[in-house]
Amino acid sequence: MPHSVWSAFVDRSLRVEGLDLLLDFSTMPIRPEDEARLAPEFERAFAEMKELEAGALANPDEGRRVGHYWLRAPERAPEEALRAAIVDALERVQAFGARVRSGGIGPQAGVAFERALFVGIGGSALGPQFVYQALATSDDPLSLSFLDNTDPCGIEKTLAQIGDGLARTLVVVTSKSGGTPETRNAFEEVRARLMTMGCDPSRHLVAVTGEGSPLETRARDEGWLATFPMWDWVGGRSSETSAVGLLPLALAGHDVEALLEGARLMDEATREASLAANPAARLALAWHVAAEGAGQRDMVVIPYRDRLSLLARYLQQLVMESLGKEKNLAGETVRQGLTVYGNKGSTDQHAYVQQLREGVDNYFLTLVASLEDPPEPPLEVEPGITSGDYLLGFLLGTRKALAADARRVMTITIPRVDARSIGGLIALYERSVGLYASLVGINAYHQPGVEAGKRAAASVLELQGALVEAMRKEDDALRADQWALKAGAPDMGPEAFWILEHLAANPRRGVRREGKILDPNARYRLGLS
Amino acid sequence: MPHSVWSAFVDRSLRVEGLDLLLDFSTMPIRPEDEARLAPEFERAFAEMKELEAGALANPDEGRRVGHYWLRAPERAPEEALRAAIVDALERVQAFGARVRSGGIGPQAGVAFERALFVGIGGSALGPQFVYQALATSDDPLSLSFLDNTDPCGIEKTLAQIGDGLARTLVVVTSKSGGTPETRNAFEEVRARLMTMGCDPSRHLVAVTGEGSPLETRARDEGWLATFPMWDWVGGRSSETSAVGLLPLALAGHDVEALLEGARLMDEATREASLAANPAARLALAWHVAAEGAGQRDMVVIPYRDRLSLLARYLQQLVMESLGKEKNLAGETVRQGLTVYGNKGSTDQHAYVQQLREGVDNYFLTLVASLEDPPEPPLEVEPGITSGDYLLGFLLGTRKALAADARRVMTITIPRVDARSIGGLIALYERSVGLYASLVGINAYHQPGVEAGKRAAASVLELQGALVEAMRKEDDALRADQWALKAGAPDMGPEAFWILEHLAANPRRGVRREGKILDPNARYRLGLS
Repeated sequence: MPHSVWSAFVDRSLRVEGLDLLLDFSTMPIRPEDEARLAPEFERAFAEMKELEAGALANPDEGRRVGHYWLRAPERAPEEALRAAIVDALERVQAFGARVRSGGIGPQAGVAFERALFVGIGGSALGPQFVYQALATSDDPLSLSFLDNTDPCGIEKTLAQIGDGLARTLVVVTSKSGGTPETRNAFEEVRARLMTMGCDPSRHLVAVTGEGSPLETRARDEGWLATFPMWDWVGGRSSETSAVGLLPLALAGHDVEALLEGARLMDEATREASLAANPAARLALAWHVAAEGAGQRDMVVIPYRDRLSLLARYLQQLVMESLGKEKNLAGETVRQGLTVYGNKGSTDQHAYVQQLREGVDNYFLTLVASLEDPPEPPLEVEPGITSGDYLLGFLLGTRKALAADARRVMTITIPRVDARSIGGLIALYERSVGLYASLVGINAYHQPGVEAGKRAAASVLELQGALVEAMRKEDDALRADQWALKAGAPDMGPEAFWILEHLAANPRRGVRREGKILDPNARYRLGLS
Repeated sequence: MPHSVWSAFVDRSLRVEGLDLLLDFSTMPIRPEDEARLAPEFERAFAEMKELEAGALANPDEGRRVGHYWLRAPERAPEEALRAAIVDALERVQAFGARVRSGGIGPQAGVAFERALFVGIGGSALGPQFVYQALATSDDPLSLSFLDNTDPCGIEKTLAQIGDGLARTLVVVTSKSGGTPETRNAFEEVRARLMTMGCDPSRHLVAVTGEGSPLETRARDEGWLATFPMWDWVGGRSSETSAVGLLPLALAGHDVEALLEGARLMDEATREASLAANPAARLALAWHVAAEGAGQRDMVVIPYRDRLSLLARYLQQLVMESLGKEKNLAGETVRQGLTVYGNKGSTDQHAYVQQLREGVDNYFLTLVASLEDPPEPPLEVEPGITSGDYLLGFLLGTRKALAADARRVMTITIPRVDARSIGGLIALYERSVGLYASLVGINAYHQPGVEAGKRAAASVLELQGALVEAMRKEDDALRADQWALKAGAPDMGPEAFWILEHLAANPRRGVRREGKILDPNARYRLGLS
């Protein structure tokens, strides 16, 4: 028994050479028959991955190639023009970052930027936020802020925090299409604020966008400081090693090359067509067994480092948007997915680990450990024991207790939280997601549900216009359902209610409520409230 | 059909008078037979709740009363002494907050505090973090920071951000027992930093702790600035309306009374023994039906406001730590629970809403809307349309599309993000959790799994001591499993491996690795690496 614990650990852990990263599956129940059953599926997955990397149209319904692996090894891109574009973009990102950091590019002659504000959502925000949270120091030449929503209260809060500093803030707008409404709206709010402050927006603005997008055209016409490319063969959720993720790193003075190197080393380790030796394949196998190939258990991710506290949210997008699909590639309804959540340890042990330990059997857990504490002489909180020993102790205690209770747990260990390890983790999960998608036969690279959500929202905004139009024509005070009827949307009474309540709650919007706030019996008419 | 959408909305939404808060269940599939089936269970739940509020030992295995409702209505506390203690603590919190804000209490005569650093974890952190995130403004007299972990890298990062400002920082240590290791460790790190800076810690420190705890004794002996009580009848995860949550509000200059008033109004609405009229009962009913009374679906919570982005994490603790239990009150193994996750909209629409729309049927969704945008004249991002209209449009579009696809969704609307509405939301969920626990027959007020986790961690720290002891006796370079054997823990080879790797990765810890980092074949001996 004692020996078997150690030999299970040795046999069922995988070390990624070069990255010095260890994956331990010894506390993850995977039976030989699971592995045997899935081996042929993995053969197919490896073959599909090879085609993808060679430039196949791996995103079939959008007719697109999937090239994020080329970003870390341009020589693998299928055409010389792509290779040159990747290298050129990287060089331009590095050079631009250096010039901004040195003050060579500033809002006015002789004035340097002190901050960069990134405007973007989804894949244009989560990667940069995760990596910046991991790597930021108080000595960074620029501090970074993010606007990732169309909430005017949130935009106001962030702009108030920046205050007059906006005059020394670089503003980076990231949107592949250039038409993402949240990004467009937040950008317009920032632009208006810059103009109110007497700043010339074109001296502050940078675009990261698709070639030929309306945003690129605008940036060129208005003479923005720079534009960087988002290619149609890089999905938003795997864009961290494109300009989307590298520009923030370059501006904050972090190690762009190390992130790329970490990803490249992991790509090499996970390119191998071997279920035994490929860490991403082992990870995908663990997911498949734990979630029964059908999202039957949630993936809980707990890194035991504050700096990694956005890892789970980053993976939430990467995994759920990739795998949460209605149809498989054959067009059959499969309703796939894999739910991800988590924050950080040991903090989460005082939140939901109670349920993981005792409650419903609906999850599998990934613990992430990092070895290095700060370089300063450590404080002993007890004789011979430091805060960092406690942190590791909580991780190992949780791992051991859950495993003893036949819960599903695995552990990834990195030497330190740095750009290289982060690059490795990102590439590991990108590859695992791609392999898992092959196993369950879905397209991991599109997001039809997001498009549908945009259309549904557009119909609500149309209703708002129609309601105001109807109210202009009639001086009555009517209930929301009655206005919806007059606006030609008889089945959208509830939506009309929220729209009219929202307008009435904001005095400058010109709608007056008669009756109580948030009361479905209230009536509305045009006029100042 | 059109009429039925509206009448379903009118019939199946519930407005909380006074709070002006609306709960809409019209897009949540709850059949009359579900309601009939659960009606007797709710009668029991109401009766148990009544006993709890009257002072019964509602946390039976810890032999404790559950009194967070008394905090909002001291006159309802079962004894005069409790009433007086609640009123006294509130007055002291308010008075202390006012004196700190005015500079009457400062680190030195004539110097005012500019910041407050809260050291606490779990219930001592999540409520304050959630509420501060919701209410903070750039004009607050003090800004707040939080240390909620035992990660020395995270502590170092926060202290570096504060920098020299630590000399003008009030430090609040919150721990009921005073012995929570994460809190103790972070506190010791902060205290050491204060001393390094030449500050007298006692002029900076405040304790929020149980009466008679070692922390209270220490605070008194060392002459800290103040201590405030944490009573054993207030659980950590329902302590937001005790000094734990009110002191941060008071220090930041926010409206303490309004938070209490909001909670009190919600308590009144949710005290009613009526499944038809009690909003918390309706909410618990919705959870029970959606999760089949057994955690079969996850509770996804998406507030469409940046300021509410910690709501889901707050609820994650409140719900999962309360409901995630192995045994029911009869001692039977039930493995209950209800998984919670979420962040904010419309941001999350670009992360995991793809899966909610198309993927696995493993969730029910709560949308949270807030009506008021900033008071300034809004920017029109399109003719007649603002950023805030888009935000609401995305919420309503998601609601409509999910409901049309027979997904489970409900909507809570508040007039604005303020202390009153936040108090109402907290009290709503506290009550729903309590009622739900009665329905499924569990103790919502203990957390035995957290204690077990602490013990497991303690055994790992003991192993560390034993390993170092064994290495002192023997000048060999051995593998981790061999050292574990010599340390008398033959089944803890993997734990020994991580402990030794951690020590070896930090040069000052006195353990040298021979071999590669994170390689199970590495050998270790004492000595500087």
